[in-house]
Amino acid sequence: MREFMIRTDLAVEAKEQYEGETGQLQGVLVETSHLEGTNGNLTKVTILNKEGAQALQKPIGTYLTIEAEDLPKPDTDYHSQISKELSKQLLALLPENDRTSILVVGLGNRDVTPDALGPKVVEHLCITRHIRLSNLPSPLKKKYDISGIIPGVMAQTGMETYEIIKGIVEETHPSAVLVIDALAARNTKRLNTTIQLSDTGIHPGSGVGNHRKALTQETLGVPTISIGVPMVIDAATIAADTMEHFITALEEVHIVEGLSQTIENFNEEEKHQLILELMDERLRKMYVTPKDVDASVDQISFTISEAINLAFAI
Amino acid sequence: MREFMIRTDLAVEAKEQYEGETGQLQGVLVETSHLEGTNGNLTKVTILNKEGAQALQKPIGTYLTIEAEDLPKPDTDYHSQISKELSKQLLALLPENDRTSILVVGLGNRDVTPDALGPKVVEHLCITRHIRLSNLPSPLKKKYDISGIIPGVMAQTGMETYEIIKGIVEETHPSAVLVIDALAARNTKRLNTTIQLSDTGIHPGSGVGNHRKALTQETLGVPTISIGVPMVIDAATIAADTMEHFITALEEVHIVEGLSQTIENFNEEEKHQLILELMDERLRKMYVTPKDVDASVDQISFTISEAINLAFAI
Amino acid sequence: MREFMIRTDLAVEAKEQYEGETGQLQGVLVETSHLEGTNGNLTKVTILNKEGAQALQKPIGTYLTIEAEDLPKPDTDYHSQISKELSKQLLALLPENDRTSILVVGLGNRDVTPDALGPKVVEHLCITRHIRLSNLPSPLKKKYDISGIIPGVMAQTGMETYEIIKGIVEETHPSAVLVIDALAARNTKRLNTTIQLSDTGIHPGSGVGNHRKALTQETLGVPTISIGVPMVIDAATIAADTMEHFITALEEVHIVEGLSQTIENFNEEEKHQLILELMDERLRKMYVTPKDVDASVDQISFTISEAINLAFAI
Amino acid sequence: MREFMIRTDLAVEAKEQYEGETGQLQGVLVETSHLEGTNGNLTKVTILNKEGAQALQKPIGTYLTIEAEDLPKPDTDYHSQISKELSKQLLALLPENDRTSILVVGLGNRDVTPDALGPKVVEHLCITRHIRLSNLPSPLKKKYDISGIIPGVMAQTGMETYEIIKGIVEETHPSAVLVIDALAARNTKRLNTTIQLSDTGIHPGSGVGNHRKALTQETLGVPTISIGVPMVIDAATIAADTMEHFITALEEVHIVEGLSQTIENFNEEEKHQLILELMDERLRKMYVTPKDVDASVDQISFTISEAINLAFAI
Repeated sequence: MREFMIRTDLAVEAKEQYEGETGQLQGVLVETSHLEGTNGNLTKVTILNKEGAQALQKPIGTYLTIEAEDLPKPDTDYHSQISKELSKQLLALLPENDRTSILVVGLGNRDVTPDALGPKVVEHLCITRHIRLSNLPSPLKKKYDISGIIPGVMAQTGMETYEIIKGIVEETHPSAVLVIDALAARNTKRLNTTIQLSDTGIHPGSGVGNHRKALTQETLGVPTISIGVPMVIDAATIAADTMEHFITALEEVHIVEGLSQTIENFNEEEKHQLILELMDERLRKMYVTPKDVDASVDQISFTISEAINLAFAI
Repeated sequence: MREFMIRTDLAVEAKEQYEGETGQLQGVLVETSHLEGTNGNLTKVTILNKEGAQALQKPIGTYLTIEAEDLPKPDTDYHSQISKELSKQLLALLPENDRTSILVVGLGNRDVTPDALGPKVVEHLCITRHIRLSNLPSPLKKKYDISGIIPGVMAQTGMETYEIIKGIVEETHPSAVLVIDALAARNTKRLNTTIQLSDTGIHPGSGVGNHRKALTQETLGVPTISIGVPMVIDAATIAADTMEHFITALEEVHIVEGLSQTIENFNEEEKHQLILELMDERLRKMYVTPKDVDASVDQISFTISEAINLAFAI
Repeated sequence: MREFMIRTDLAVEAKEQYEGETGQLQGVLVETSHLEGTNGNLTKVTILNKEGAQALQKPIGTYLTIEAEDLPKPDTDYHSQISKELSKQLLALLPENDRTSILVVGLGNRDVTPDALGPKVVEHLCITRHIRLSNLPSPLKKKYDISGIIPGVMAQTGMETYEIIKGIVEETHPSAVLVIDALAARNTKRLNTTIQLSDTGIHPGSGVGNHRKALTQETLGVPTISIGVPMVIDAATIAADTMEHFITALEEVHIVEGLSQTIENFNEEEKHQLILELMDERLRKMYVTPKDVDASVDQISFTISEAINLAFAI
Repeated sequence: MREFMIRTDLAVEAKEQYEGETGQLQGVLVETSHLEGTNGNLTKVTILNKEGAQALQKPIGTYLTIEAEDLPKPDTDYHSQISKELSKQLLALLPENDRTSILVVGLGNRDVTPDALGPKVVEHLCITRHIRLSNLPSPLKKKYDISGIIPGVMAQTGMETYEIIKGIVEETHPSAVLVIDALAARNTKRLNTTIQLSDTGIHPGSGVGNHRKALTQETLGVPTISIGVPMVIDAATIAADTMEHFITALEEVHIVEGLSQTIENFNEEEKHQLILELMDERLRKMYVTPKDVDASVDQISFTISEAINLAFAI
């Protein structure tokens, strides 16, 4: 039972929510495989058409989700395996002729721990574009040009992220853009254990911050891949989860009857309205994050940087 | 109605919870006054004896709470007023002959945004002890010796905060210790709007992190004042709040009857157990914080530093 | 005597060097006035034509230099006075109709202490452009739109600063650009005591880092004001200074005779060559900075942010 | 020729200076060996008695110097080799029964780029002491207890580093202390290429900052190993070097004769006085550092952390 359908940045969660409600999905292909050398899985969700896009509330495109439950553990070999796999999937999403020069964009606010994921990925990158630009001699055996930018968030810049990135793309002509962002998950078990790649870019209202105008192939004019990691949960999610558990508990002990049925009969809009009413207004501007989020951000940002370096730089 | 009594770091919240339940408090004095020149209030809760301590689940001592709802706004004059008031209260808690040399301890993890409050306060302090130590000529017209330390958290140091501070106190013999920490509140309206001073020090399990052994006059051997600001809410609090609102809503529309009565009959232990069962286990290791917590931490830490500088340094 | 003419970012130093050599300056106007309420001076160097530009090795334009020897001291009132003066001069350089929307660019590497001046100025700014963009209600009584960007340095981004800023200007259409940068001075007495404003933008090879392509009205298409503060000295400067002092000392005690005469007869190229030969090759990639540079950067960046806020935001 | 003997933190440089002057060393043993798998060398300087200590101006004890000229290059395998070697030498300096619990002290100011080496080493460490303390289950296969502290510098704390560390040692009873610090070198070629280990601890006036009271086995009561890396050069060094080169150059072209002879006849005190007179007074409070010092600090601090982790934690 899932009474309250909450927005999620993850296609794999949208699929689960949808299946929980209806059990079938038109216009969506799902393939799952085991990640070699680890206990992780790779799920490929392909949204083929408008029906699929409507059902999952996500744009048409490919969504690759790496789920690796040991990602929070400080195991160097395990992380190295995940970097290799991520690197492989990145190359699979980006055809050879789009790899000449990659602009990596680290979205998020470096001053807010879980939102610093994108900036930290860019900080660890092996930047190479200026070497060709400057004709510098270099010990790096670089493959492609890598450039990187940490644009900051709207409250810091006064500009939409889109404006900054569009401007830089127009001026530096990368062959592709790679956008890194911290996401909001629906379920606590996703935090620190899931990495989503997509060729659909980043869409408004996603993630921890609020990057309003989409960064996509349509808006930027070049292939735009996103890498997202769930680092927070919206406070609304917790309220919804608690209520579901509460209703189940009440019915199990027969304190109330038929309550879940009543609520299931609510439409989406009514359910959403109920949640908002039950939540303190201030809570809607809050997020939930694990107490050890600083260590997770450091670790996962390093794993993603390594994947990008492996794929494009070294 | 307050079905679920949740631990709070704030005496003023403990008092509200208790009053909500029973309406009377033995062994506790409460005085409230208006803060001149602002729209804020000062509440002084004095726990006089064991009965009071038992009722509020806090040690015997004085708890001063400044509540200033405009604290989150970037109004320099308002913050300056609050600094002056805080400075006055600090001096009131610390008699003249205990002010010779103050060791200020900035508790918390500087890498986790809301927990960086303590470290940031120490960073902005006007440190003066070394000037006397070095016989340096100085432009500072200092009153007392101020020293400061940012000990880090247990996962960073491998040591209890108590061990570090006790060692430094034994070696440097301050006349008093001032401990700054980010607290967990019970209610979202407290975030960024409340500052609590107390002469009872800091106690185990408080705040964002986990500083296990108490820092108090008993353990450190010198007067130990704490300054705490609620920066986060435990995820459990949100679950509890949502349920209360939900029950009220259900009863208002007569979907269920007598539910709140049933739950009120639960004892404390049963209520706490219910909450924990309803919450996802992972949630218990999480905290909730506003999305703009970075700006709040900067602002409030500066206001507290200024108060300490006013009281003891300049 | 000034045997070795070293490149300087400061027009006021270029003027001093030139005067030291020839005593007269064609095509350059110099006015000096006292800064009210402080012990500081304001020098306005106007380079009127090609002759002046050739003589001072700087582009035609206006260079305002605030010299305030107490700037390194932590005196809030003094800094507040300097902020007001700087604010006044900024408005004087930027006519009313160019103030609609200002893009502030914080040049430099935030990971290198003296080079973090630009980034820190932008961090403290009162950013307002997004408020109009979002139609947000706001407590800020803003005058003009302020946006800000911290582009990073080439080794971090792989891009020329020019490429990033040009792109953003093309996309967001500010009415003027304000560029903040840490400069290299010729003389240690300039460090932390001097602020230079200019309507000629920032030119290649300036400052601590290396921002190759100019940011000027010509290249960006809108008025481009620079604010620069000397934070470092090139190691070559120290070598040159030491030699001069050495020669003087040798001649005073009559160990050698006529040496300064010999060296004065060298042309510019020969002198520069001598310095480079005397310096260890590795030294040329080094800079000299005061041991307390962290405190200076914090203080002066705050003073500049306040000036910009006063002029355009509040 | 080395006219001006400048203080150095490196025993290997003190030896070179001394040999340059007299060619022989009483009470000092020197052994040099090749570092396997790299192009580096290991030099072991043992100061056996008072004569040796007097000659090198260093305390009696063992000084191991790893010289690896490719350390500045971002070559992971090379750094991994150096970590292994450093780990081996650390274990050689610390007998088995002193390894039970190691307190690692990261000296220096984290806000000044080259001085952040010590703090960054502690940040990357695998801290384990609290696991035993808390009886936590842990995935770490730890060998010994590791704790860590970043005390800050005197201007930040108002306390001598000695006071802080002595207090913590008295309270937590480590079996040994490991102190990490950024050093001042005599020669630019040492920057980023040299790591010195010593069983003599850290002595007054060393390094970038000023940690006045010694941290040694005598003062702390337990074996105290230091790891130091030259990150800066004193500005005085550059002045001295330039003068030497200048004198040599003048004599080669027969502009002056007998000057170096004259200066060699000066005693130590007279030479030192000459340097100070020739230098701008402000220069004495300055340091010289490479422009890419941020990348070096990151890289070398990581290499040292790995060495400590290898030796004691994993």
